[in-house]
Amino acid sequence: MSRSLITLTTDFGSGSPYVAQMKGVILSICREVDLIDLSHAISPQSIRQGAVSLADATPVFPAGTIHVAVVDPGVGTTRRIVYAEIGEQRYIAPDNGLLSLLAQGQPPELIVELENTAYWVPKPSHTFHGRDIMAPVAAHLANGLDPKKLGSGRETIVMLDWPQPQKSSSGVVGEVLLVDSFGNLITNINADDLETLGEPSSLVVDCGGHNILGIVPTYGAALAGEVVALFDSQGRLEIAKVEGSAARELHIEAGERVAVTKP
Amino acid sequence: MSRSLITLTTDFGSGSPYVAQMKGVILSICREVDLIDLSHAISPQSIRQGAVSLADATPVFPAGTIHVAVVDPGVGTTRRIVYAEIGEQRYIAPDNGLLSLLAQGQPPELIVELENTAYWVPKPSHTFHGRDIMAPVAAHLANGLDPKKLGSGRETIVMLDWPQPQKSSSGVVGEVLLVDSFGNLITNINADDLETLGEPSSLVVDCGGHNILGIVPTYGAALAGEVVALFDSQGRLEIAKVEGSAARELHIEAGERVAVTKP
Amino acid sequence: MSRSLITLTTDFGSGSPYVAQMKGVILSICREVDLIDLSHAISPQSIRQGAVSLADATPVFPAGTIHVAVVDPGVGTTRRIVYAEIGEQRYIAPDNGLLSLLAQGQPPELIVELENTAYWVPKPSHTFHGRDIMAPVAAHLANGLDPKKLGSGRETIVMLDWPQPQKSSSGVVGEVLLVDSFGNLITNINADDLETLGEPSSLVVDCGGHNILGIVPTYGAALAGEVVALFDSQGRLEIAKVEGSAARELHIEAGERVAVTKP
Repeated sequence: MSRSLITLTTDFGSGSPYVAQMKGVILSICREVDLIDLSHAISPQSIRQGAVSLADATPVFPAGTIHVAVVDPGVGTTRRIVYAEIGEQRYIAPDNGLLSLLAQGQPPELIVELENTAYWVPKPSHTFHGRDIMAPVAAHLANGLDPKKLGSGRETIVMLDWPQPQKSSSGVVGEVLLVDSFGNLITNINADDLETLGEPSSLVVDCGGHNILGIVPTYGAALAGEVVALFDSQGRLEIAKVEGSAARELHIEAGERVAVTKP
Repeated sequence: MSRSLITLTTDFGSGSPYVAQMKGVILSICREVDLIDLSHAISPQSIRQGAVSLADATPVFPAGTIHVAVVDPGVGTTRRIVYAEIGEQRYIAPDNGLLSLLAQGQPPELIVELENTAYWVPKPSHTFHGRDIMAPVAAHLANGLDPKKLGSGRETIVMLDWPQPQKSSSGVVGEVLLVDSFGNLITNINADDLETLGEPSSLVVDCGGHNILGIVPTYGAALAGEVVALFDSQGRLEIAKVEGSAARELHIEAGERVAVTKP
Repeated sequence: MSRSLITLTTDFGSGSPYVAQMKGVILSICREVDLIDLSHAISPQSIRQGAVSLADATPVFPAGTIHVAVVDPGVGTTRRIVYAEIGEQRYIAPDNGLLSLLAQGQPPELIVELENTAYWVPKPSHTFHGRDIMAPVAAHLANGLDPKKLGSGRETIVMLDWPQPQKSSSGVVGEVLLVDSFGNLITNINADDLETLGEPSSLVVDCGGHNILGIVPTYGAALAGEVVALFDSQGRLEIAKVEGSAARELHIEAGERVAVTKP
């Protein structure tokens, strides 16, 4: 029989021994599990960046994978921790919006609030529920526990407001959703949003006052050092500096307005 | 039968290919093993930070886990490399104090000096004993080797001096043990040390001339940007900036004096 | 039966969720695999650094290990992606020189261009062939696929020019190949290159105008803060600052001239 699969997403920083503590707790409860680091480089307490990483990376995992996400500025307060099934994946996360981008198009099929302390470590701390509640619960699920035993069913999870691009006959206005590790500017505008505007190569992209003429098919279509617009591997409009950092070149951060217009 | 479990702790930096070399050597000797990165973000040659990470993270692993720790400024000198059993865990490390925080409360039950070259790679280098001696020894142990075959038994390991907080009737004086990846200041003062002083919420914490009134139960009890004192997930007094970095805010490093007094 | 073993080397940055996407794709096709991060800290688009990491770290892995390397500035252009068998290892990489240091001494025994889209994800993106082509191909190979089914056989791969040290009767002139995560300067001069010059302890190493008298056997032979020359764990001449960074101390980058002479 295959082992269970658990991924971990945190804002603890790459190489944090806090991540290792979560793994130790999991492995002490369920030895037959494969652990995958999804990302530990989420900016501290950035729920939105965590939500984007989860939405991008988790759907390609095998059905039934358990994804534990700990970006948890409200740890120790009354915020809930939830188990949720979204698409074919299973999630454990604080109910603070971390799962809200995933749940935007497809409401969770099952939501359970983590209440049953029988599946937590004894005497959980007030400051590290990732290790003391979420990790052991994930391990018990990996052992085959019925998620309905974790606590009471809930109808909804906390949904953040994800800004939608505004479309008009002359163009689309959106914003920079996040800056990736290359300094590429990932926007909330999708290829689909631009379909009626005409050939991508003919459109004008305005990002923070910087105009880019034409959306290119690949990085390779431009010279090193050029700033280009293209669709990223998720189909989102991305502004990139070939072999460089667009964020540094253009001094742009998440939230900056991006407009795509016909010339 | 379950696979063996080996964790790796080094100061090589996250993503270092040196870590991969250790993994390659281990997997070439023992294929049925799960490898866990405990941390590779120990500050270069910081034996104390390595010792704290090992003491915090390794005890939660399954009994019998093999922990390999390579923070080894003395590599190539006459410093010993040891195998030690502490609590239910097994360790391989240079004998330079890396295991001394773990061994403070519970002396190792078995200590063996790594001497038997039959379990090393042939012709080990002078500069990378992590790959050439510690990794293959860990793999042979994972294959079931009796640790007594590794070399001669020893009575003691090198113990560093771990500063203890000083208690008086009016308060407790300790110090910042380390700064974590969030910029939280982790001290050597434990919740137990403060028990006789009264309600945590009534105490005054002085850290580098910065006074904090009251120890709060959680981050959530304060506003974003506030500097608070609380007990961390290990029960240690911690000074933190809510949604920020206390180390940056207060310009404080490891070693800074921390005093807790009654008002 | 043992699981297959796949290593991943990228320039995505430690903790990048792009790496997790590759892992998700692999695990969805082949569940019985162990995934090892070789390094994700290759400098963005640095084919040479990736080539050195692959040459250093992959040969110690078990025979038959599949190494996927994604340092791919030409993604989306007409550059080939290849499967190659070099020594006892198997590689999947863009054909841009990434495998050329490995292949320098030992020509690949089998080279296949990745052409058969049956083993790719449906509708691969133009910007992320690591996830859409290389990851699924690796997973199919891990499932036992005959590599000849991946596409047409090729005779050669792209070879970069790897500068060779110049030897004369009075000494050897080489260069700094790369700077590692400790700030050690790794050169292209090997211990073998210096054999005829005499005792290492008597030689003079000139690196960017900084003279080092004598090659020492280990870091431990010098005091903290001293800049020393020694042979690294691969047998290469390395210039290091004991308990510090030689790159920062000497303001030296990859490509700097290094000369070793008799006094």
